Amino acid sequence: MVNTYWILLIKINYQLNMKNYEQLIEYFEEQLKTIKYKNDPLELYSPITYTLGFGGKRIRPVTTLMGCELFCGDYSKALPQAIAIELFHNFTLIHDDIMDNAPIRRGRETVYKKWNSNIAILSGDTLFALAYQYAQQADKEILHDILSVFNNTAIEVCEGQQFDLNYETSSNVSVQEYMNMIRLKTGVLFGAALKIGALIGGASTNDANLLYDFGVNIGLGFQLKDDLLDTYGNEGVFGKKTGGDIVSNKKTFLFIKALEISDTKNREKLLSLYDSIDIDPEIKIAATKEIFSNVKVDFAANKEIDKYFTSGMECLNKLNIPNENKQYIKDVAVKMIDRNK
Amino acid sequence: MVNTYWILLIKINYQLNMKNYEQLIEYFEEQLKTIKYKNDPLELYSPITYTLGFGGKRIRPVTTLMGCELFCGDYSKALPQAIAIELFHNFTLIHDDIMDNAPIRRGRETVYKKWNSNIAILSGDTLFALAYQYAQQADKEILHDILSVFNNTAIEVCEGQQFDLNYETSSNVSVQEYMNMIRLKTGVLFGAALKIGALIGGASTNDANLLYDFGVNIGLGFQLKDDLLDTYGNEGVFGKKTGGDIVSNKKTFLFIKALEISDTKNREKLLSLYDSIDIDPEIKIAATKEIFSNVKVDFAANKEIDKYFTSGMECLNKLNIPNENKQYIKDVAVKMIDRNK
Repeated sequence: MVNTYWILLIKINYQLNMKNYEQLIEYFEEQLKTIKYKNDPLELYSPITYTLGFGGKRIRPVTTLMGCELFCGDYSKALPQAIAIELFHNFTLIHDDIMDNAPIRRGRETVYKKWNSNIAILSGDTLFALAYQYAQQADKEILHDILSVFNNTAIEVCEGQQFDLNYETSSNVSVQEYMNMIRLKTGVLFGAALKIGALIGGASTNDANLLYDFGVNIGLGFQLKDDLLDTYGNEGVFGKKTGGDIVSNKKTFLFIKALEISDTKNREKLLSLYDSIDIDPEIKIAATKEIFSNVKVDFAANKEIDKYFTSGMECLNKLNIPNENKQYIKDVAVKMIDRNK
Repeated sequence: MVNTYWILLIKINYQLNMKNYEQLIEYFEEQLKTIKYKNDPLELYSPITYTLGFGGKRIRPVTTLMGCELFCGDYSKALPQAIAIELFHNFTLIHDDIMDNAPIRRGRETVYKKWNSNIAILSGDTLFALAYQYAQQADKEILHDILSVFNNTAIEVCEGQQFDLNYETSSNVSVQEYMNMIRLKTGVLFGAALKIGALIGGASTNDANLLYDFGVNIGLGFQLKDDLLDTYGNEGVFGKKTGGDIVSNKKTFLFIKALEISDTKNREKLLSLYDSIDIDPEIKIAATKEIFSNVKVDFAANKEIDKYFTSGMECLNKLNIPNENKQYIKDVAVKMIDRNK
């Protein structure tokens, strides 16, 4: 009886001590600000401080902290790896923006636009190496495992970006190919962020792998939600104009799936809209959304999101941790997918 | 007496068993060829196999093997790290060629020229991550130390490249600034290659650091020799046309030092040659070499090379290893500096 009482008390305390998502974001932001980067050569380090000062959602590093906290109760043990994940993510953004000719990110000029491509290539490379400097700050017993996850993920993210570039000029991308591309470009980093945190927290290999699969699934849902918000978001809440993907002919899930499920008439109309060069952007957005509505592609996207969410939850349920802790991590998944910005 | 006899015998055997430089290059080339890269997406992996199939001197990875052999007698223990060093070096070449607009390397089209900049950025990034995959294949007791050397070096090499880019448009670069730039861009990787090998071979921290300093010094001499060969090399042996640095207005040691030691007349003549746009390349090369000869800058460069060689030898002499082994590594330094191609 006494034992049960104590176990219950410990469980409740443990649960109460766990930081909520917003607290962890705040903690991470504070810690990130304390990093002192070198400043010589200035052209190399200014873009790095500039990029990391952009803000951003910080979801990925916070899931690393959570993954750790789930198993050992102390999120701060995973701080170096959380920083590594965030630096790595920002390195990919700097290089992606060169490749995508993207002038604006998070409301500010991108590095390649503010400085130039050479500086963006080189400061990105430096950020990648800095990420490894943080990733390697782990106990020697688990260092190799952590680096394996980190390396494999880095390679997969590059593969995902290459597929994305290839699909820009490819006329027939299947839904399956698209999903594989976003799994590599977005999903695996969520999986890795959680798995690395879990490994630092002392999770078993099985639990760490389950959390990885959970992360990949939720990451896929997260990206599909991105596609949806870009077209259907509430501009006031979303914080930027919707329809950007349509205007730039981006092959999102909505476009690819719409082509797949459309009849010949709608398919031809959609393809001709994406072929038009001088069309007024507002007219193009409205006409494309009309086809999307006709074929109910938003419904199909939400169904797909549900599918990945369910798969993620199945992984979560198999984890060998208390149910309260499962709920803790489930709340984040809901936040990532049920967002409106 | 018996003891001395045995020690002598072991020493001789050990020395006889040590591979010579050419044998290690052959061994490394064979091992490098056995690596199976993925091939999907093809656009990402083709440039990697293409670049590594270029050839190249393979000096850096071979010094890693040697650094290891010096301390444990078995060079093959350091093979993963030797591969890591070579992959890293090739990653920097792919990215540098974009930044330098260099169309040709080792007699073949560069990656950015053969494919495009985006593919060069991304395959370079992938190669960087692949390098880490090999670097991390070390015993857990020394993994952290090895990665620290690897990370710090990666960052310094980026810094060196940034200084190099800055100096392209800077009108007054001092010899000291130039030497610091080539220390970062070239020297530290030689130091790291040797130090990582030594750590795997079981060297003490002191010996590993001495070998690092030796490598940096020899690396500096190696780069100065590069500058000399580009202007004074025998074209038949050098394998390419000399004078390329002069034609492209590259601020080499020869140019910077010549400006420093010239009288006003020669300085103005040299600056005006580098300012000329429509000048015939052969005339420019001949006129520049005449000034170089007037101020004896080749003599100054050779003196500088000797200085770094001597500093390197001082580090080598302090190493706690048999003299035969010191000679083994000294031979490589001589090969690196007394080369004519």
